[in-house]
Amino acid sequence: MTLANRALSVYVAAFLDELVRANVKHIVVSPGSRSTPIAMVAAEHPDLHVWLNVDERSAAFFALGMAKARREPVAIVCTSGTAVANYMPAVVEAKESQVPLIVLTADRPHELRDIGAPQAIDQLNFFGKQVKWFVEMAIPEESPEILRYVRTVAARAVSTSLKGPSGPVHLNFPFREPLVPIIEDDQIWESGLGHRAQFVKAPESKLMMKEEELELLANGLMQVERGLIVCGPLDRPGFAEEVVAFSEKLSFPVIADPLSQLRSGPHNKKLVIDSYDAFLRDEYIARELVPEVVIRFGAMPVSKAVLLFLKKNPQIKQMIIDGEGLWRDPTILASEIVHADPVLFCKSIHKILTEKKEQNAEPTTIKWLESWVTADRIAGEVLEQLGNDEEEFEGQAVLRIAQNLPENSTLFVGNSMPIRDVDSFFFNTVRNVRIMANRGANGIDGTISAALGASTVAEPLILLVGDLTFYHDLNGLLAAKLHKLNATIVIVNNEGGGIFSFLSQSEHPKNFELLFGTPLGLDYSHVVKMYGGQFKRIDDWVELSAAIKNCKDVKGLNVIEVRTDRSLNAEKHRKIWRIANETIKKNWELGEGDAH
Amino acid sequence: MTLANRALSVYVAAFLDELVRANVKHIVVSPGSRSTPIAMVAAEHPDLHVWLNVDERSAAFFALGMAKARREPVAIVCTSGTAVANYMPAVVEAKESQVPLIVLTADRPHELRDIGAPQAIDQLNFFGKQVKWFVEMAIPEESPEILRYVRTVAARAVSTSLKGPSGPVHLNFPFREPLVPIIEDDQIWESGLGHRAQFVKAPESKLMMKEEELELLANGLMQVERGLIVCGPLDRPGFAEEVVAFSEKLSFPVIADPLSQLRSGPHNKKLVIDSYDAFLRDEYIARELVPEVVIRFGAMPVSKAVLLFLKKNPQIKQMIIDGEGLWRDPTILASEIVHADPVLFCKSIHKILTEKKEQNAEPTTIKWLESWVTADRIAGEVLEQLGNDEEEFEGQAVLRIAQNLPENSTLFVGNSMPIRDVDSFFFNTVRNVRIMANRGANGIDGTISAALGASTVAEPLILLVGDLTFYHDLNGLLAAKLHKLNATIVIVNNEGGGIFSFLSQSEHPKNFELLFGTPLGLDYSHVVKMYGGQFKRIDDWVELSAAIKNCKDVKGLNVIEVRTDRSLNAEKHRKIWRIANETIKKNWELGEGDAH
Repeated sequence: MTLANRALSVYVAAFLDELVRANVKHIVVSPGSRSTPIAMVAAEHPDLHVWLNVDERSAAFFALGMAKARREPVAIVCTSGTAVANYMPAVVEAKESQVPLIVLTADRPHELRDIGAPQAIDQLNFFGKQVKWFVEMAIPEESPEILRYVRTVAARAVSTSLKGPSGPVHLNFPFREPLVPIIEDDQIWESGLGHRAQFVKAPESKLMMKEEELELLANGLMQVERGLIVCGPLDRPGFAEEVVAFSEKLSFPVIADPLSQLRSGPHNKKLVIDSYDAFLRDEYIARELVPEVVIRFGAMPVSKAVLLFLKKNPQIKQMIIDGEGLWRDPTILASEIVHADPVLFCKSIHKILTEKKEQNAEPTTIKWLESWVTADRIAGEVLEQLGNDEEEFEGQAVLRIAQNLPENSTLFVGNSMPIRDVDSFFFNTVRNVRIMANRGANGIDGTISAALGASTVAEPLILLVGDLTFYHDLNGLLAAKLHKLNATIVIVNNEGGGIFSFLSQSEHPKNFELLFGTPLGLDYSHVVKMYGGQFKRIDDWVELSAAIKNCKDVKGLNVIEVRTDRSLNAEKHRKIWRIANETIKKNWELGEGDAH
Repeated sequence: MTLANRALSVYVAAFLDELVRANVKHIVVSPGSRSTPIAMVAAEHPDLHVWLNVDERSAAFFALGMAKARREPVAIVCTSGTAVANYMPAVVEAKESQVPLIVLTADRPHELRDIGAPQAIDQLNFFGKQVKWFVEMAIPEESPEILRYVRTVAARAVSTSLKGPSGPVHLNFPFREPLVPIIEDDQIWESGLGHRAQFVKAPESKLMMKEEELELLANGLMQVERGLIVCGPLDRPGFAEEVVAFSEKLSFPVIADPLSQLRSGPHNKKLVIDSYDAFLRDEYIARELVPEVVIRFGAMPVSKAVLLFLKKNPQIKQMIIDGEGLWRDPTILASEIVHADPVLFCKSIHKILTEKKEQNAEPTTIKWLESWVTADRIAGEVLEQLGNDEEEFEGQAVLRIAQNLPENSTLFVGNSMPIRDVDSFFFNTVRNVRIMANRGANGIDGTISAALGASTVAEPLILLVGDLTFYHDLNGLLAAKLHKLNATIVIVNNEGGGIFSFLSQSEHPKNFELLFGTPLGLDYSHVVKMYGGQFKRIDDWVELSAAIKNCKDVKGLNVIEVRTDRSLNAEKHRKIWRIANETIKKNWELGEGDAH
């Protein structure tokens, strides 16, 4: 046992142990030589679960999904060189969707950098602005100062990854040879293992407005007749209950993005609007529903109709409540950016309003609110009924999944068309269903890996993806095989980029298939077989319903493919939206007639 | 046709046309919406070949392989968001291996950045130090100044990507909606198409020493008795002939890395040493062969034995000739870093030496040189003979390939073990065989894509990879299907990371298979079938020989798998090296005996 060898081992052990004390329980390891010290010591820590994943791109997305599902930081480690570069896509997604990732990379030591040594690239600040914090670690030493330092960096990395906005941090470790640590004796855990207290604690803190500002705001809101709450993607336990209570106090309808987690669960959904994406497309309907004030939570909703609705009405006073201290307003029309934790904000305003309202009259339900609720009810009914009738219609996949998902399941949704179809066809339910997606940068990459990462804690898990998204992360399927994960994947296979049939590119048939349609002509049954999964191509929706109903009993990887037609699907979407909106308008006219 | 629409189209057309005038003939497109202007206009340019590739990671490696094989810049284009991030691995490799890549990314315009707009990430300086040049492009306009500007940036991007050291450049295009350009009329090509002259020319230039310095250097070299030339990875047409002529003038042996391109071709190979990796492992042999002076060209050779040989002998005067102006000396022992084009350098020194030598005596062949040549001959004979005898020995795959490769073929080699086995078992040949590998950052990623990119110009192409490298870029196989490429892939499948059996990690069996061995247990016949390829698992080396011999006649994707055993393979390597070195030493002793 050389001195350098001992220093390396104790240094890495102190670092990993402090990660564990700071509540990191999982590390995704990709094989490599330079990263040997971290990999080998991690495998020795009794409270650290090692997940092997060969492709670093998939590995990082797997960790991202796991971190997201657990709402806890997860570590990843890889060797030097392009291995690091393969982390980039998931790091970008983690940054944009505020997922705490602890990115550990091994590097050549200083004397072997920028001199043509093998597998050495410039890893300093490698992720640029895509990480919250970068640290070039000290060369391993065994002095008390350096061990205290390495523990502090570990604690700070975890804390930084968690503080709002959460996100990835990157620590780069220069390691000299020999790279094999001492794992044969317990001496490397110089100060006991992870069940002890942290060396440095960094308790959670939250953003909140001043009391006086809150009071003013509450007073203002009480004067508002037509107020609308918009909840975009937001994953904050307890938020649904609080925002609903707050909205009911003011009689404000609530636009609930599928990723707001407002559409599922036991809370009251009287004011929770889920079919806005259909009826806000109609100019006449939208005009009738314009509010005076909008209060927005979370990221911007998936629905483009909502965005256009806000942009077309610059007179609306838009107030954006952001718990992360961000400035997320793609409309560029906000009149107020409030940096306050959404749960705390709703609770506090609700409390003030309750005190005030008790002295005043009951809230009056106005016709405008009724119009919102009626439009939503009718749109929902038409969408559900027609959607269930249409063959080869991608919306029906969502309807079938939504109708049959068991209690406490997780639905992971691919980008592009699936998330939009979930927006349209996943209606309010009392069942507890968590909906997840990679909605930071909205990529079609890494989706299988992220979903499988989530499946390690969220079971049963159903992943709904298009064929290009499925193709993009085929390597991700390996995790299901290696780690014996249970998951049901539904591929809506329309042979290419279905979303482009909804965009103006589709009006130019020349080169459309080459550049946008991009049919791949792949029979995915082969690759699913290679990864030891079950594959079934279905042509009857009843089969899909049954599969979803039974997803709890599925062991291993279960892939179901539904074939659809891209341009037909776009047509059917347009038809259903049109009929829904015509029905709403007819009903409104009748209503008006009745009132006369 | 709106004004903005017209400006967009003319701007993008001017840019792409100037790329073409600057000799960019290929663009690899990944589907996306924001990148529509570039994709659609590119598809209209008669002199620009569009290659579609869905996975941006594979797309970028495909372009890298194409650029490397053609020795010409290739463009890639993708949409905003994580698509860009997926380019990172190939960009890193392009930087390290000096491949000219023109990276074009589409972005949200300024008013939609950092405000939570969908699919918007911070793309400015995204690739950090991994690119040679970054430009945030101007918003499209149609003014003569802006069109001149966009053409100048195109010309400059190509020139910058080519000037030594060659490498990737990144241009980020902010595009506003509507994104569909006008392609229906020819007006967008405002100043004619690519067959015209460039707007700005930037002729090639090379680094060279001053005449006086060269003269001094030549004089010095003439005094050296024991001089050694080391040629690492270097891809410069004409170099082989020049360095061989130069070495013969001085009677210096030449260590020729397989990627130096010195082992193949019609030039004289009397002094070209190809089996050094075996015999420099032996302490006694290495001691006998120590030179006074080393002149090194290109990157550091693959062989670790060479690196250690140089490091163990700090007294050697090391002179490094670098045509790219780099400082590549992982030994940190160089006494001279000469920035000069290697071809020009060899030619110039050769000329000076020829003039001087004519006045002087003939070069004398010393015993030291004979020892080099004898050791090389014997090691080669033993390696070839024993290698051919061993079953389940990975070196034999290389022997079979090398023996049967047709004239003018390209052998693309995966990293980790295959490149090391090629170093050991690919011997000097008069046949014209180009050997390629991703030896910038030595990653196991993107290899299939890079090889298939190369295959678009280099046919017949054989790719030799290990199973982990094959797995890492399975998505790359799609290109073979979509673009009907012809390639033969030989997988040496030892079920995991074979190289680790050679490293000290293997001495610690606990967790070895989990962290380093990493057997995946995948039957690749399934996935090859999905991509429309032929798959054959062989257990007789004769089949491999036959397949390589016939590789010219192969249409489409042809995958051959050889199964081996990792630890057995490591043992056999060690055994063969040992016997080779014993034979050399015995021969030397006999030689000494004879002389007495």
